[in-house]
Amino acid sequence: MTLNASSLPADSPDTPTAVRRWEAIAAELRHDIVQGRLTPGEKLPNEATLAARFGVNRHTLRQAVQALAQEGFVRVAHGSGTYVRELVLDYALQRRTRLSQNLAAAGETADRELMAHEVVRAGEWARDLGVAATAKVQLLYTRATVRGRPINLATSAYPLPRLDGMVEALAKHRSVTAALHALGVPDYTRKRSVVSCRLPTVEEADALARPVTQPVLVVRYVNVDGQGMPVEAGRTLFAADAVQLTVEPDALET
Amino acid sequence: MTLNASSLPADSPDTPTAVRRWEAIAAELRHDIVQGRLTPGEKLPNEATLAARFGVNRHTLRQAVQALAQEGFVRVAHGSGTYVRELVLDYALQRRTRLSQNLAAAGETADRELMAHEVVRAGEWARDLGVAATAKVQLLYTRATVRGRPINLATSAYPLPRLDGMVEALAKHRSVTAALHALGVPDYTRKRSVVSCRLPTVEEADALARPVTQPVLVVRYVNVDGQGMPVEAGRTLFAADAVQLTVEPDALET
Repeated sequence: MTLNASSLPADSPDTPTAVRRWEAIAAELRHDIVQGRLTPGEKLPNEATLAARFGVNRHTLRQAVQALAQEGFVRVAHGSGTYVRELVLDYALQRRTRLSQNLAAAGETADRELMAHEVVRAGEWARDLGVAATAKVQLLYTRATVRGRPINLATSAYPLPRLDGMVEALAKHRSVTAALHALGVPDYTRKRSVVSCRLPTVEEADALARPVTQPVLVVRYVNVDGQGMPVEAGRTLFAADAVQLTVEPDALET
Repeated sequence: MTLNASSLPADSPDTPTAVRRWEAIAAELRHDIVQGRLTPGEKLPNEATLAARFGVNRHTLRQAVQALAQEGFVRVAHGSGTYVRELVLDYALQRRTRLSQNLAAAGETADRELMAHEVVRAGEWARDLGVAATAKVQLLYTRATVRGRPINLATSAYPLPRLDGMVEALAKHRSVTAALHALGVPDYTRKRSVVSCRLPTVEEADALARPVTQPVLVVRYVNVDGQGMPVEAGRTLFAADAVQLTVEPDALET
């Protein structure tokens, strides 16, 4: 946890000091939460301690905390204290498994960032994609972020030449569903998900902005088109403090 | 890894020494695997090293290893060495989620051991069971073992008075499905599974015979009877090195 007053703006006679102060404090705390220095479920120091640390009165400190509570970064448990809000998203593993839909159900939106891409031989993805091990596939490495906080890392493989253009389509649409649609796959369904869990590598933990001691849920999956042909296989690492997977065999799906 | 010759029987003129030796060595190695001192995927020391450590010739050592390979505790990769076999069971989260069926598909059988039980107020289980928080429920703490190795720990809650007698029924039948059947629930289906993962507590790690650094998959679930009434809610901790969860929305079920 990193809390210090060094980066706060100095008082100056021509600025509405009180306003700038609480905004700067809120920004500092928000940054600590997003970067994982304040972790979900962690209790903030009490008002008096924080106010002293930032060199402001309790009223100013309270304004900062209230702003963060409204944004959903913290929750105030009256009589108990203020806690970093756990971001636990329900991710439904169902016939139509869509990140955007799962997040919309929680009132959230995700940003999917393309971190790297390469064309390789199918290798470990051959079986899931139903192609020869020597066939070419497009690999995309992406990261999904909610409210500035990474929630998953995905490695996705698309058969070539059929899905040539995924890199550009994903960069343009920032959604796998929209990108596949643009490349002539109007619909796809989840054929299989296999869920396991493990500790992340140092690189994975860094990309997820989590400590290496925080396990990740690993979902290996295959998506098929309307004719049952695989259009995507992949492996998604979910930050286990932010996402739980739900399976409801009889749920009605849209 | 604990390998020593101290617990092996001494040679004696009236016993078939060679036979007793390899059996004792196999028992020792089996014990190390079951206790988790030799972990899945770990390579055994080479034949010469093991033979020297146990004070036997290579032929005797090889007999012990072959016996363990036949029992499925190790696999011999020719030209590479002998490895502790990974016990990765596919556990299907589907309408009829049954431990016994899932294991039968892998050619395995489980033993479910009742570790403790108590009658408590529904509390955290009230919502899942659709009862008042003050209603009574029967809690069972069980452990499932495959080939002598723990694979999961379960806390299961049953509404009372409807399922009065679960303790005795489970002790008798050693299967939840059979116990529920005996208590007038001919069939049940999985309404919901919620999957998360975390590191185990020291007690949980001990009960699973795993290190505390090995994450567990946590499945919180609700099972309902033919009329949709909850008959069981619970939380199962799966050893993530032994079990992976599969979800196939369109799979045909029996």
